[in-house]
Amino acid sequence: MSDHELRVSKIRNGTVIDHIAGGQALNVLAIIGINGSGGDAVSVGMNVPSDRLGQKDIVKVEGRELSQDEVDVLSLIAPAATINIVRDFDVAEKHRVERPDQVVGVLECPNRHCITTEDEPVQSRFEVLEDGVRCEFCDTIVREDLAKLIVD
Amino acid sequence: MSDHELRVSKIRNGTVIDHIAGGQALNVLAIIGINGSGGDAVSVGMNVPSDRLGQKDIVKVEGRELSQDEVDVLSLIAPAATINIVRDFDVAEKHRVERPDQVVGVLECPNRHCITTEDEPVQSRFEVLEDGVRCEFCDTIVREDLAKLIVD
Repeated sequence: MSDHELRVSKIRNGTVIDHIAGGQALNVLAIIGINGSGGDAVSVGMNVPSDRLGQKDIVKVEGRELSQDEVDVLSLIAPAATINIVRDFDVAEKHRVERPDQVVGVLECPNRHCITTEDEPVQSRFEVLEDGVRCEFCDTIVREDLAKLIVD
Repeated sequence: MSDHELRVSKIRNGTVIDHIAGGQALNVLAIIGINGSGGDAVSVGMNVPSDRLGQKDIVKVEGRELSQDEVDVLSLIAPAATINIVRDFDVAEKHRVERPDQVVGVLECPNRHCITTEDEPVQSRFEVLEDGVRCEFCDTIVREDLAKLIVD
């Protein structure tokens, strides 16, 4: 693919998150804690044509190498995502997201009476199931629309 | 600037919102109602170096020409933004955002007792002031952090 066809250009150093399901890029940014206010140089392509996914999203974060832990939470909303760590314009490492056992402080429990959603200094903690997540405090199970639970 | 230096590539047809203050791109998307789920092809560059602004954000929406009304609400968070309507890779129209007199349904009133924030079918409506906005229902004036009031 020529540079002209790329929706977002190559980066010198940083992390490329590719093969995100179409329309999920903003949820990916939320889940890895990037909203632009930190000054990170970030490029995002949404609903880009893709052979494998039909339409895909792509996120490139310059100057920052995301850790495996940071990207693993992406498995909840972007299970097909691939992670490339780029150094001096070359792909130095390739990862796939792996489903973590647990996600901490990433999702908000939808149960309004859960201790994590009241005014207590308790971080949310969810066990990751085959097909969803389970709040470790109140046992609420969520299987759909996980993106809506992402903490702002 | 060469194609290689562009953070987000040229578009064939659509709208380019340039000279957004650095870090405000996601708020711009929220204010014009784009979250990716509509299938619009969108490219975003955040914290791109800029001669004029130091750092700027840029948003390109393919296949959609935003109206002057749609972009005018951007003046609240991106007063320096420039709008280019692109047709067949050429800039067909150039606009600046203009401060509208009123914004409807874009911001949520921070007053929890305002009728617009209770369970009533009433759209929010703010008068745009020189230095902020005023709720037309409860007269609450907001001067800072307008981005936090953007309706999801």
